[in-house]
Amino acid sequence: MLKKERKEGEGSKPAVKKQIQFADQKQEFNKRPTKIGRRSLSRSISQSSTDSYSSAASYTDSSDDETSPRDKQQKNSKGNGDFCIKNIKQADFGRREIEIAEQEMPALMALRKRAQGEKPLAGAKVVGCTHITAQTAVLMETLSALGAQCRWAACNIYSTQNEVAAALAEGGFSVFAWKGESEDDFWWCIDRCVNLEGWQPNMILDDGGDLTHWIYKKYPNMFKKIKGIVEESVTGVHRLYQLSKAGKLCVPAMNVNDSVTKQKFDNLYCCRESILDGLKRTTDVMFGGKQVVVCGYGEVGKGCCAALKAMGSIVYVTEIDPICALQACMDGFRMVKLNEVIRQVDIVITCTGNKNVVVRESLDRMKNGCIVCNMGHSNTEIDVASLRTPELTWERVRSQVDHVIWPDGKRIVLLAEGRLLNLSCSTVPTFVLSITATTQALALIELYNAPEGRYKQDVYLLPKKMDEYVASLHLPTFDAHLTELTDEQAKYLGLNKNGPFKPNYYRY
Amino acid sequence: MLKKERKEGEGSKPAVKKQIQFADQKQEFNKRPTKIGRRSLSRSISQSSTDSYSSAASYTDSSDDETSPRDKQQKNSKGNGDFCIKNIKQADFGRREIEIAEQEMPALMALRKRAQGEKPLAGAKVVGCTHITAQTAVLMETLSALGAQCRWAACNIYSTQNEVAAALAEGGFSVFAWKGESEDDFWWCIDRCVNLEGWQPNMILDDGGDLTHWIYKKYPNMFKKIKGIVEESVTGVHRLYQLSKAGKLCVPAMNVNDSVTKQKFDNLYCCRESILDGLKRTTDVMFGGKQVVVCGYGEVGKGCCAALKAMGSIVYVTEIDPICALQACMDGFRMVKLNEVIRQVDIVITCTGNKNVVVRESLDRMKNGCIVCNMGHSNTEIDVASLRTPELTWERVRSQVDHVIWPDGKRIVLLAEGRLLNLSCSTVPTFVLSITATTQALALIELYNAPEGRYKQDVYLLPKKMDEYVASLHLPTFDAHLTELTDEQAKYLGLNKNGPFKPNYYRY
Amino acid sequence: MLKKERKEGEGSKPAVKKQIQFADQKQEFNKRPTKIGRRSLSRSISQSSTDSYSSAASYTDSSDDETSPRDKQQKNSKGNGDFCIKNIKQADFGRREIEIAEQEMPALMALRKRAQGEKPLAGAKVVGCTHITAQTAVLMETLSALGAQCRWAACNIYSTQNEVAAALAEGGFSVFAWKGESEDDFWWCIDRCVNLEGWQPNMILDDGGDLTHWIYKKYPNMFKKIKGIVEESVTGVHRLYQLSKAGKLCVPAMNVNDSVTKQKFDNLYCCRESILDGLKRTTDVMFGGKQVVVCGYGEVGKGCCAALKAMGSIVYVTEIDPICALQACMDGFRMVKLNEVIRQVDIVITCTGNKNVVVRESLDRMKNGCIVCNMGHSNTEIDVASLRTPELTWERVRSQVDHVIWPDGKRIVLLAEGRLLNLSCSTVPTFVLSITATTQALALIELYNAPEGRYKQDVYLLPKKMDEYVASLHLPTFDAHLTELTDEQAKYLGLNKNGPFKPNYYRY
Amino acid sequence: MLKKERKEGEGSKPAVKKQIQFADQKQEFNKRPTKIGRRSLSRSISQSSTDSYSSAASYTDSSDDETSPRDKQQKNSKGNGDFCIKNIKQADFGRREIEIAEQEMPALMALRKRAQGEKPLAGAKVVGCTHITAQTAVLMETLSALGAQCRWAACNIYSTQNEVAAALAEGGFSVFAWKGESEDDFWWCIDRCVNLEGWQPNMILDDGGDLTHWIYKKYPNMFKKIKGIVEESVTGVHRLYQLSKAGKLCVPAMNVNDSVTKQKFDNLYCCRESILDGLKRTTDVMFGGKQVVVCGYGEVGKGCCAALKAMGSIVYVTEIDPICALQACMDGFRMVKLNEVIRQVDIVITCTGNKNVVVRESLDRMKNGCIVCNMGHSNTEIDVASLRTPELTWERVRSQVDHVIWPDGKRIVLLAEGRLLNLSCSTVPTFVLSITATTQALALIELYNAPEGRYKQDVYLLPKKMDEYVASLHLPTFDAHLTELTDEQAKYLGLNKNGPFKPNYYRY
Repeated sequence: MLKKERKEGEGSKPAVKKQIQFADQKQEFNKRPTKIGRRSLSRSISQSSTDSYSSAASYTDSSDDETSPRDKQQKNSKGNGDFCIKNIKQADFGRREIEIAEQEMPALMALRKRAQGEKPLAGAKVVGCTHITAQTAVLMETLSALGAQCRWAACNIYSTQNEVAAALAEGGFSVFAWKGESEDDFWWCIDRCVNLEGWQPNMILDDGGDLTHWIYKKYPNMFKKIKGIVEESVTGVHRLYQLSKAGKLCVPAMNVNDSVTKQKFDNLYCCRESILDGLKRTTDVMFGGKQVVVCGYGEVGKGCCAALKAMGSIVYVTEIDPICALQACMDGFRMVKLNEVIRQVDIVITCTGNKNVVVRESLDRMKNGCIVCNMGHSNTEIDVASLRTPELTWERVRSQVDHVIWPDGKRIVLLAEGRLLNLSCSTVPTFVLSITATTQALALIELYNAPEGRYKQDVYLLPKKMDEYVASLHLPTFDAHLTELTDEQAKYLGLNKNGPFKPNYYRY
Repeated sequence: MLKKERKEGEGSKPAVKKQIQFADQKQEFNKRPTKIGRRSLSRSISQSSTDSYSSAASYTDSSDDETSPRDKQQKNSKGNGDFCIKNIKQADFGRREIEIAEQEMPALMALRKRAQGEKPLAGAKVVGCTHITAQTAVLMETLSALGAQCRWAACNIYSTQNEVAAALAEGGFSVFAWKGESEDDFWWCIDRCVNLEGWQPNMILDDGGDLTHWIYKKYPNMFKKIKGIVEESVTGVHRLYQLSKAGKLCVPAMNVNDSVTKQKFDNLYCCRESILDGLKRTTDVMFGGKQVVVCGYGEVGKGCCAALKAMGSIVYVTEIDPICALQACMDGFRMVKLNEVIRQVDIVITCTGNKNVVVRESLDRMKNGCIVCNMGHSNTEIDVASLRTPELTWERVRSQVDHVIWPDGKRIVLLAEGRLLNLSCSTVPTFVLSITATTQALALIELYNAPEGRYKQDVYLLPKKMDEYVASLHLPTFDAHLTELTDEQAKYLGLNKNGPFKPNYYRY
Repeated sequence: MLKKERKEGEGSKPAVKKQIQFADQKQEFNKRPTKIGRRSLSRSISQSSTDSYSSAASYTDSSDDETSPRDKQQKNSKGNGDFCIKNIKQADFGRREIEIAEQEMPALMALRKRAQGEKPLAGAKVVGCTHITAQTAVLMETLSALGAQCRWAACNIYSTQNEVAAALAEGGFSVFAWKGESEDDFWWCIDRCVNLEGWQPNMILDDGGDLTHWIYKKYPNMFKKIKGIVEESVTGVHRLYQLSKAGKLCVPAMNVNDSVTKQKFDNLYCCRESILDGLKRTTDVMFGGKQVVVCGYGEVGKGCCAALKAMGSIVYVTEIDPICALQACMDGFRMVKLNEVIRQVDIVITCTGNKNVVVRESLDRMKNGCIVCNMGHSNTEIDVASLRTPELTWERVRSQVDHVIWPDGKRIVLLAEGRLLNLSCSTVPTFVLSITATTQALALIELYNAPEGRYKQDVYLLPKKMDEYVASLHLPTFDAHLTELTDEQAKYLGLNKNGPFKPNYYRY
Repeated sequence: MLKKERKEGEGSKPAVKKQIQFADQKQEFNKRPTKIGRRSLSRSISQSSTDSYSSAASYTDSSDDETSPRDKQQKNSKGNGDFCIKNIKQADFGRREIEIAEQEMPALMALRKRAQGEKPLAGAKVVGCTHITAQTAVLMETLSALGAQCRWAACNIYSTQNEVAAALAEGGFSVFAWKGESEDDFWWCIDRCVNLEGWQPNMILDDGGDLTHWIYKKYPNMFKKIKGIVEESVTGVHRLYQLSKAGKLCVPAMNVNDSVTKQKFDNLYCCRESILDGLKRTTDVMFGGKQVVVCGYGEVGKGCCAALKAMGSIVYVTEIDPICALQACMDGFRMVKLNEVIRQVDIVITCTGNKNVVVRESLDRMKNGCIVCNMGHSNTEIDVASLRTPELTWERVRSQVDHVIWPDGKRIVLLAEGRLLNLSCSTVPTFVLSITATTQALALIELYNAPEGRYKQDVYLLPKKMDEYVASLHLPTFDAHLTELTDEQAKYLGLNKNGPFKPNYYRY
């Protein structure tokens, strides 16, 4: 349905005149580039479902057994066989991974405790389609502790941690996922989640929109019982806005992608670390004294620039938006056009959300040894296709690292073939995933328990108060102590002592 | 009319459920604390009109002549006498100040050039009430170059640069202002601007709302010819929202206070520098190794924390809002309650927008020599009144610096008696004033030229495109080169090549 | 005697093959540039004695009385008249200044306490010649508490804080100093300190070498009773090395200028703050986004660069030494020749210790509004003389700020006429002065109590252990807790548990 | 011979009263802890020869062939068989590695060019014993280009890159090394380098002192023809000082370990990056908001602290030396005793050069999930042995990562079993190795060409001018442009225009 995936918080997130509205208002995106409309539900699989997610699966060895999981008879130790995974014997190993993850996801653990009595998801039947990792397992087991039944498939054919899937299956969850699914497997797994006699989901938790799409296509009647959709990805959110705009969205949907905490952590704070990590793991480059150009000064660009400056790099920035450009100036970066510095820089990083930011002409002018990578979105920012010409030689020197060699011997070091460096070559800290997972859980609770009429058939942002609640659940990790307003102060400020503390438009 | 003044961008700007709307939408603030309503137009003078603004007037010697300007016969060299200032002989000195300011306000100079042919303010009769400084003079002369007639009064009884007023009067402007006006003078000057036979203003440029208030009170019929109000201060903006809410706003008003560029510059970037400057000028304290607690992690707090951390201070932060608190954690600051660190810190800085953040109990527990100051808003954050008790001795050691001495000899160093440190003890860089002035000029042009019906009797934010335009006019100062979208890219992003580049809710 | 003053720790401190040796070794400087030798003891007054020291004297009003102090009959409240100062009535005001300074000089206060019983300076007769400030007063009263008698003159004709001198005189010290001495006064004061019937000094504490010089010239026989000289300034230290080299040094001398703590604080840490302070107080410039070139990457340059980078400036560095240049690269600064960036920078800062680093040709090429200042040494780095030509107009716009105007209207903003910005336009924090003063006191104690033969007629560095002791006395200011070695660890490292902890050549 | 290895630049490098002397002076270390003396030449293998060096060998697959290289008949394509390596077929792959390394070692390439005509090592017969990596290969081929003959062995049984060894052998070098040597292999290889009929070395390049030791033990007569030893490691340098002290050093030796550039790069700049890299690769920890204690504030500690602070961690520091402690304070770190913060920190990093800095008692008090690692020296800083008790469970969760589990379930994450994190879990950038290799090459040239009598049978530091030369050769990498002194300036400063620019004691 979508021609391109968009990364949240990219450098120059396009305006496209969206009007985000808040919990009690409907939300619409205007038209995306027109070609998108032409593609329809006859699509096969979303791009996000094939993006490699190397590190998340780093423990998993998929080479041990060549039989397809679909062809195996599967049972856990209690005789339950309503799942399909790689190898149930890995359950113990997976359990340990989950336990370790639990220690870094205190917010979900706190949710389990706080909601223990009330079971706010009692009766909820959640069907989910996300990356299947230890962190997801903590989320699923939290939902279960809150009263929900869960059935789950993977949103990506490569990213499943088989041992975690095994632990979940052993624990009684109906999981259908393994690392290295075929496209046919992918849809088969989703179908197995949804299509069960005597069981109908009433909540959807989706990441990328493929599950939602499948139900729309195959089981549209299911929506009668569904109370809402919680969607995490930019791609999936965009699809929902399209549906809404087309008048086809038949249940309320919660966009958890645009919550403040998720945005800041996924982009600014996470990229501040992952740019260094991704570059080091792939190239062992020394940052000190290096000249770097960062294309785009949105949250991702801001994070990259701050980190590299702190490590002693000399950073140049390109921008199309004068406001972001002015920020870059005030933060101490030279604002240039790419052409002005392309011959002298050692590293080129794209964070724009745009396409063809680095084109063949730029690549031709780079100096020998220049490293080129993309932190922005999808794989469109660097025109990698333009490098697939006969006179250039490609040499794979490490996993995710190619040398592209010009006839005169010049080598460009291209990382992850222009795909997202942070997904391909570094890891996402559990803490960031914890924020996302907690937001998802709260969104499910909100939608499931909302009184009739609070939400219509539209796309909503999480109420700010819940955003604040997610943040507050993560403060103990830092041993952070919040100050409480006195009655007098609350009155003075015209605020409720428990928040929300800021207007919706507050910029943070 | 207003019981308290609010500083823009303060640490914990209260939510008060405002819904900012954009250019084509009306904008309302919900009720402020209820007591505000009780005070009415019978007020005398806004607090902002008496805030001292020390540095802006640093060149001015007001002691030379004791005769009130109102009692003097005044004429400039061309025989024009339609003004009232301190001393026309200072005109040359003032002209030089203006010329220097021009060099740092390239955006206004660029506006003069670009609009030279078209005269977008031809026919405009602007009555203004702002600080009268060299920077204001550059603005006024720009408005004049764009075709406007201007009459001007001071919005503050202390802040007028007499020599600049003289240069303006000599240049033919009708200026009514001098340093050290009485309250009666203040209103007399405003009245002289407005009340002129055969001349009626059609545009208002206000800073604090006193001018607007005066016209409402004395000459309500004038509003029939007035096309709009441009208001810069938080206080004035708040008054406008009050009027709008009460259905009494009878012309469109433009809130230039909440534009992105102004906000970021007035708060984050400006405070990052002025906290250091203000502390050094008053106390000569060495920052390295000092323990500091910053109350509030809004834009102002973020700026203060970043600067002090960079100078080697150890910074603790207090917050009420869990989202800001989480940001502080990720930025490397210990999040504490004030009580936890009050005994050990060397410096206490308030940036909350709240009241009684530092109370007598905290002051009693501070260690000897602790410096206490306010960067947040007004003078409410530190409970200075609680220090006016018999057992404490006050000792003025420098301008703006008091030692408050406890019976046991402990001294607290209180700066600016709890008023805003950055206004009282440091200067606002011309560059920041340039951004504000440019935004004001553009707002006047927009309101004056807007087609019938674009703006109703309500309060508006500047359209984002104009915000971007203000930013773009300031980029040449940094020799910053913006990248332009290709047609293909613009299409891909669904953007107009000339902007706006971001949705209204974008956080920057 | 000296043609130029040299600032400690300057950017490119010349090697001149000095061989610093440590406490039990003699120390020699090789020849300085040859012309120095030509000037002899027939000199009048050292340059350092006329350097203005604006801020240190900021409280002092010298305009109240035109009678020369030498012509006045002076007595303190106890009838003692062995002093010569401006006005004894200012004693109370001065006492308060001293008390405030005491609170920021805890190391000296600790010395007073620790040495209370033993009186390690009992019998010492110290004659001193330093800046007379509140901080010096704390030192003098400490020496007195340790048992010494003190007589004191000013080392600079402008820097005396009259009220502090009054407080000292009132307290019984024989002080001969006032702000605004003539050259004749200067030497008269020094003579009055030394030349007293029935009293002969046995220790010298000097800053600049003028006192030492005077005794050499007028009372050479006094050296028979003198146990040693403690000298603080680069200039004075250089003179001592000259004397030593010439075989004319007849007592041991302690070079306190080159101790680690003093060096790091005077240069790196102090300049990191004073560059910002000096620029703000004089020009109110906004640092964010400014392009700055710093000439010299020694300790001073490192401090300036770090501060400006942190404030969002874009900093370029010039260097002659490839090692310092490599450090600048790794710290994230572009290493350029001045010519490459001179047209584009907003601020030029010299920190080289060299001469003619910024010459007329460079000044001609600077852009309008460029700020030029010197943080390095003396007034030789910027060729200010080259600007004294008829076609250029000088305009004094503030104290310490000149606009030099080219025929085409271009203005260069020259600070402090090329003299040291940090001395002229900012203040030295008391904490830095505390380190120096403590080092001086310890040096006096060491020299006064050293067993026969430990020190010969040569120049010595303070033993490292004393340097460490000075540091340890300042740690409580930061509530810093030092770890102690266990016996086992000390043995493992081959160290004494009480230090010294590092070899002499350790770089810190 | 040595009981412990010492890392250069460690936090609290012990004083041990060394007196470093410069090129024309002899240099001695005082006695190390006495037990060292007891071990004699009867030792087998130095510790450094078994330290794992994981990353350097990351490309090498050692599993392909189980036959010992010693048992194989080996010949390169030209029929030469004077080498012993793993597999000559890997030569092409190794050549590419070398070519890539050449691009990052421009200084050696420049040396090749500059010295092309003169061949300063013509006649030199160099026997070397170092890590055999691509970077070493560039050094060896440079020495060869300068005229030297080379025979080489590995200084570490694990670190050899087999494919590089193959490329060297194919290129005609007599290399004796493979990854995974036994101890017997180790000495056999060294012997094969040295013991060749008709060939005697006249220069030694050693890293760790094993080669030197072997010749001392087996072929003492060889020293008659040997002109000098160049030693790189702390361990090897210490051995040389021991020999010198014992009067047994029979040729001049050059200590390249203590050159400024090597020290700053190996410690400050390299650790600033490798602490982040090492922690990320092993634990994927997010740095933002983490509380970290760094033990030791020497160069290594300074680098770690700067990096973590920049990434948003809250950093505490422990120190024994008050001067370093004061620096930490001024740089913005709380100076604590370990016990004060041990319960609250998330990460503990040792950089002291000491032993038992983190003992069992501290480990018992750490919170769950605390990460513990060593950046300092050897494996003595953390008392790992104390964790080998029955009640604690060790769980290897990844390569180099152990969970040590307390009976109550608390887990400590121990990295690299307390060995050096930066060697075990991150890589050393080629640029750093380039500086070392260039210094080694210059030291060989200096010793080989020094006129009779310049160097005696002692240990020397590289002349400062050569240190500066090494730096200057690396500046082009950064496109850095050095300023040259004018004749006038050189005269003013008393410097030679070509350096050296600083006195030997300059601290940088």
